[in-house]
Amino acid sequence: MTTFDLSEYLASRRAAIDRALDRYIGAQPGHNHTVWRAMRYGLFPGGKRIRPILTLAASELFGGKQEDLLPFACAIEMIHAYSLIHDDLPALDDDDLRRGAPAAHKVFGEGMALLAGDGLLTEAFCLLSAAEVRKALAPDLLSELIHEIGCAVGVAGLVGGQAADLEAEEREVDLAAVEFVHVRKTGALIHASVRVGARVAGAKGAELRQISRYGEYLGLAFQIADDVMDHQGEELESRAESGRKERRKATYPSIVGVAQAKERLAELLQEAVNQLTCFGSGAEPLRAIATQVVGRALSEELSSKIEEKHP
Amino acid sequence: MTTFDLSEYLASRRAAIDRALDRYIGAQPGHNHTVWRAMRYGLFPGGKRIRPILTLAASELFGGKQEDLLPFACAIEMIHAYSLIHDDLPALDDDDLRRGAPAAHKVFGEGMALLAGDGLLTEAFCLLSAAEVRKALAPDLLSELIHEIGCAVGVAGLVGGQAADLEAEEREVDLAAVEFVHVRKTGALIHASVRVGARVAGAKGAELRQISRYGEYLGLAFQIADDVMDHQGEELESRAESGRKERRKATYPSIVGVAQAKERLAELLQEAVNQLTCFGSGAEPLRAIATQVVGRALSEELSSKIEEKHP
Repeated sequence: MTTFDLSEYLASRRAAIDRALDRYIGAQPGHNHTVWRAMRYGLFPGGKRIRPILTLAASELFGGKQEDLLPFACAIEMIHAYSLIHDDLPALDDDDLRRGAPAAHKVFGEGMALLAGDGLLTEAFCLLSAAEVRKALAPDLLSELIHEIGCAVGVAGLVGGQAADLEAEEREVDLAAVEFVHVRKTGALIHASVRVGARVAGAKGAELRQISRYGEYLGLAFQIADDVMDHQGEELESRAESGRKERRKATYPSIVGVAQAKERLAELLQEAVNQLTCFGSGAEPLRAIATQVVGRALSEELSSKIEEKHP
Repeated sequence: MTTFDLSEYLASRRAAIDRALDRYIGAQPGHNHTVWRAMRYGLFPGGKRIRPILTLAASELFGGKQEDLLPFACAIEMIHAYSLIHDDLPALDDDDLRRGAPAAHKVFGEGMALLAGDGLLTEAFCLLSAAEVRKALAPDLLSELIHEIGCAVGVAGLVGGQAADLEAEEREVDLAAVEFVHVRKTGALIHASVRVGARVAGAKGAELRQISRYGEYLGLAFQIADDVMDHQGEELESRAESGRKERRKATYPSIVGVAQAKERLAELLQEAVNQLTCFGSGAEPLRAIATQVVGRALSEELSSKIEEKHP
């Protein structure tokens, strides 16, 4: 048994990310303050910061220095925050609440929320190419990483997944279509979070492929876990309380049922942690993150099976 | 007198840009096709392509090769197209028509139009960091240029200008506030279009500063010219025909009147072309573009004064 303390690990990484985000997105003189406030509203207090924590955790495995990684971790979180603000707009999911608080468009109006999302996305690319990042990294690697992040959140990734998701609302979809959406809308950025962390720290070849597959399995599992949790939550909570308007969204549990979705989830988690075996105890944070993030949606019985294989 | 043929120049550059855009944003297998179609709808047939043409023209002055410049020119046009799609959404300007055709959100729905804008912005950064660009350019210059473009369209630039514009609708604004918006919402990307073209072609130091100032004056003049044209157009055309909802937008002509706005415009145009004097006849395209773009809003009398100084 390891003595690794996941709660402490997550809290310390999260604090470092929050401090860095606060520094990158502080109000600047001479700019429009409202759009900054709306951008910060989308960033703070924020959620679990899973994506930037994955970036840090993947880099630590290859000896990366946290200060070199924080701009990447924060840019990824800013992109995630932009996607949530736009997703909550009436034109897309039309959610009035985000993490129990009014969505950005309810506080700042739709126009300002739209611009705050645009601002977060754009400033993420500004941050990735900022002088302090250019100084710390080999310039050819830096532009490759900008490309990797851009593609993960462009039409082949996040935006394409959102578009497919939007279209899926209007027709019957099968499991393949749901997976198409998940892999792009959620999976691609999680995958990139892991890969970018590893690459900044110098991972290459077989090791990079291995850690990439971890990110790929985890990315898909993450969305299914969310949907399983939502599905179970909905049985406890009324739609009105959740702030979510009535919409038909195809998910793993809605197509194959909760039990089978959980089976699939357990398989994906198993595959994710299997990819880490070769890295030994240094991969404990990545293993523990996957197990916690995905495991919360599994029954104790399924969870324990996975832990047994990776003591 | 020069024999430079501006119409031919613009047509040939525009054709090269359109071919390149068509290549960069062609439908890709395995992606969501609707969002690609919506992105292409925002790009084609497009407007005058002034920004990417400025990028090419500025680079030609310093001996840049068109093939190296096209990714930058096209990324800038994609960013411009994204800003128009988002600007037309009901949450912002609520325009049903764009260049005489239905706005993207009227054809594809608000959600898909929002995503098409997000896609164009993201794919612009993908394109800037693509393998073919990385191969052609010194990697440290490339990441500096990505930063320059990002900052021009982030909160210090386009997004900040849009936000200030949105807020200005709700209160009385003075000329300084209007200029704050113009410099950011329109000026910053035009300025960057010129600078990036020059920098890719190797411009540095005093020459780069000179051409930058040209871009700065032109950027501000461009928006005032547009507003003067709109102001005059509105006297001919009913609001209903223009497809634009009734809104109070502060502009140069609405604050100081058309005559004074035109005086200011003539000054700015004069300053812009003054910056080009040191470059001699090689700057003829840049001079002619400024004179045409801005001059269309001037009376013949004011236009001819400027041409006299730069025969």
